[in-house]
Amino acid sequence: MQKPSIPKGTRDFSPEEMAKRNYIFNTIREVYHLYGFQQIETPAMENLSTLMGKYGEEGDKLLFKILNSGDCFSGITDEELSERNAVRFGMKACEKGLRYDLTVPFARYVVQHRNDIAFPFKRYQIQPVWRADRPQKGRYREFYQCDGDVVGSDSLVNEVELIQIMDEVFRRFGIRVCIKMNNRKILSGIAEIIGEADKIVDITVAIDKLDKIGLDNVNDELRSKELSEGAIARLQPIIMLKGTNREKLAILKKELAASEIAMKGIAEMEFILDRIEKLELTADLELDLTLARGLNYYTGAIFEVKALDVQIGSITGGGRYDNLTGVFGMDGMSGVGISFGADRIFDVLNQLELYPVDSLKTTQLLFVNFGEKEENYLLPLISKVRAAGIRTELYPESAKMKKQMGYADTKKIPFVAIVGENEINEGKINLKNMLTGEQSLVTLEELIERF
Amino acid sequence: MQKPSIPKGTRDFSPEEMAKRNYIFNTIREVYHLYGFQQIETPAMENLSTLMGKYGEEGDKLLFKILNSGDCFSGITDEELSERNAVRFGMKACEKGLRYDLTVPFARYVVQHRNDIAFPFKRYQIQPVWRADRPQKGRYREFYQCDGDVVGSDSLVNEVELIQIMDEVFRRFGIRVCIKMNNRKILSGIAEIIGEADKIVDITVAIDKLDKIGLDNVNDELRSKELSEGAIARLQPIIMLKGTNREKLAILKKELAASEIAMKGIAEMEFILDRIEKLELTADLELDLTLARGLNYYTGAIFEVKALDVQIGSITGGGRYDNLTGVFGMDGMSGVGISFGADRIFDVLNQLELYPVDSLKTTQLLFVNFGEKEENYLLPLISKVRAAGIRTELYPESAKMKKQMGYADTKKIPFVAIVGENEINEGKINLKNMLTGEQSLVTLEELIERF
Repeated sequence: MQKPSIPKGTRDFSPEEMAKRNYIFNTIREVYHLYGFQQIETPAMENLSTLMGKYGEEGDKLLFKILNSGDCFSGITDEELSERNAVRFGMKACEKGLRYDLTVPFARYVVQHRNDIAFPFKRYQIQPVWRADRPQKGRYREFYQCDGDVVGSDSLVNEVELIQIMDEVFRRFGIRVCIKMNNRKILSGIAEIIGEADKIVDITVAIDKLDKIGLDNVNDELRSKELSEGAIARLQPIIMLKGTNREKLAILKKELAASEIAMKGIAEMEFILDRIEKLELTADLELDLTLARGLNYYTGAIFEVKALDVQIGSITGGGRYDNLTGVFGMDGMSGVGISFGADRIFDVLNQLELYPVDSLKTTQLLFVNFGEKEENYLLPLISKVRAAGIRTELYPESAKMKKQMGYADTKKIPFVAIVGENEINEGKINLKNMLTGEQSLVTLEELIERF
Repeated sequence: MQKPSIPKGTRDFSPEEMAKRNYIFNTIREVYHLYGFQQIETPAMENLSTLMGKYGEEGDKLLFKILNSGDCFSGITDEELSERNAVRFGMKACEKGLRYDLTVPFARYVVQHRNDIAFPFKRYQIQPVWRADRPQKGRYREFYQCDGDVVGSDSLVNEVELIQIMDEVFRRFGIRVCIKMNNRKILSGIAEIIGEADKIVDITVAIDKLDKIGLDNVNDELRSKELSEGAIARLQPIIMLKGTNREKLAILKKELAASEIAMKGIAEMEFILDRIEKLELTADLELDLTLARGLNYYTGAIFEVKALDVQIGSITGGGRYDNLTGVFGMDGMSGVGISFGADRIFDVLNQLELYPVDSLKTTQLLFVNFGEKEENYLLPLISKVRAAGIRTELYPESAKMKKQMGYADTKKIPFVAIVGENEINEGKINLKNMLTGEQSLVTLEELIERF
């Protein structure tokens, strides 16, 4: 019989990994709660009609489709079958697919439950998503997203609070980060000013390379993307943008004065900075024009969080969008959201060894089992220990001492209680500290006190 | 555009439902932890080779299969296609399926990670499962299971602790329950004694009707199942089994004395009762011979929990099994486990209105937004309130008072803080209790004190 395995790109999580993941999820959850966000959950399966066409052509291909139960061939002609067109067949033989992200199900949720929701709706959602991507290091076919969004409010106060949330989450993790912010409207303004509306991505990609390849090479790259010399000349102050956020904004204000949309983006930035400066963030908030995530989606602020002490991509991102639910026939629902990258945060916490000892706490106390008599004596006693909230085990069999101690070691149980005939007669418990090896004879009350 | 919907048999969970579900899961989780159980998670998708054949022919049909991404027709001949055999096609066009329960993935996990596991392995797992069942009231195609198992130990101490866990969980919920216990070995013994080994289920079903239809009708039903008159006669003391657990066991001991396996089952029951009697359970533990769940699976104790104050089926169940992992080529891994029925517990808590107020706690305090000046004043102040752990919101826009108060009402926020120009000048906060309507002028420190 072959050894069982799991589908490529998926993972089992061991007790230790689960403890770490729960620490991550609980920390994020607590901060969301502090800001009035409420949790929802949506089904793993959505109708394919809900999912298709929302992630581009490439995304459609990455959807996991669920074969209709019963007769999957029903409604499919022999001729269609003989075409062997996997895509078209999938659309007919599958009604359902696994969710690809949390945003589209959230949009669907908002439309479906619009009458029951108190707007502005601050929701968070921590659930797995599935993508038929080619698995590779750090990229999985099943992974968790931790999204928080506020919909039904245009107020930039929401952006301010989301920045506070990101700052507080990473402060609690002890991860030093930089929160980068851009604004889609400023990027649109730049494109407008230089008359190259469709080259925003090329421009941000080129600017991003300034530190690595130098100004001349950046300009060459822009030429290779067929930007005019005039456009490149107008871009120079923007490529070389430096200084504090305020200094950068002053330059942009001057260079982009002719663009109404750019001025709007700059005003949004200033609104946010005015408030953030009074809020004593732990992290730096940095205006970064090279942030260009979700450009076909975001319409205002764009966020990204970078860890300062680990080489890894963005560990959180988000932004403002204008029309979450239009695709489901409900217009005017704007919002702003962020998404914590749980897998990368997991890696960062591992590399920096930042997990608090308490978060990995497992069983605190193991009672050794010497046999039926001791077992009978211990069961009611252990009930009292547990009633005091102490995570306690009785080794279920009177196995060899070495085996029982080995169990405590493997499970990293910090204390072992030894109760044999002598201890029973004395009404005491022999408590051994597994780290120091120190032993002490204590009463039940003293033992409970210790924890 | 049609209103979006979700696949039949699946559910969205609103913030209030999520709060209730989290209360249920957290309570179960905490009790598992107290007994040294550790959490694992497995992927939603398993290889179909892992799942097929484990749930009987009917179960195979209820598996949700995931269409291979890329070319799902690869390896399928035109001839095979033209057969339009959905089952055979599914096996070739799908490599993966959604997990149907948590037991088979757990068995797969144990085999795959045997070298990293400290046995006895006490694991719990709280995850959704998927079944292509016909949806009906109270039956879903996606639902959560909350399983706890101890594998790698034959000791009946594990049964004792699982009974304690069930008792403690329902004590914490405030649900009055009866924990019913049977033993597969006793049922086997009964069948052996009356010489009708294949009629166990018919017998337990008939006995179960005694209270409703009376002894004569029970005997008639047994006749209709072609039990001999001799067998029925021998069954009479067992059908009419009454009294305390000890009295029942005394009768069974006498009636089943000739069956070695029955006596073993009775000894197991006595072992468990001896210990449970010293442990001051909240619930009653009742020996019930009509419990006949999982007979093709359980080999020792069988458990079921019934709510006393609500008409609903079993809300938790479990039992002892001999060979969890044999089907994956690893023999001798016996264990015992239970599974809490989260959906039914949800219904019971709703019907009896047993959710603690605290468990439904959402935002505790909403600050009314009067405009930019007040907003700027409030943002740093609110940071301090949150730093004190109080779940706080600032309404993100200076909307009409009625709208902001309506938001607090809908979201059931118990306190609203009103800070206008006067309050700012005085350095005070006007705190309104939304339940009593009472208002008081407090300082920031006093406000934090209140919570």
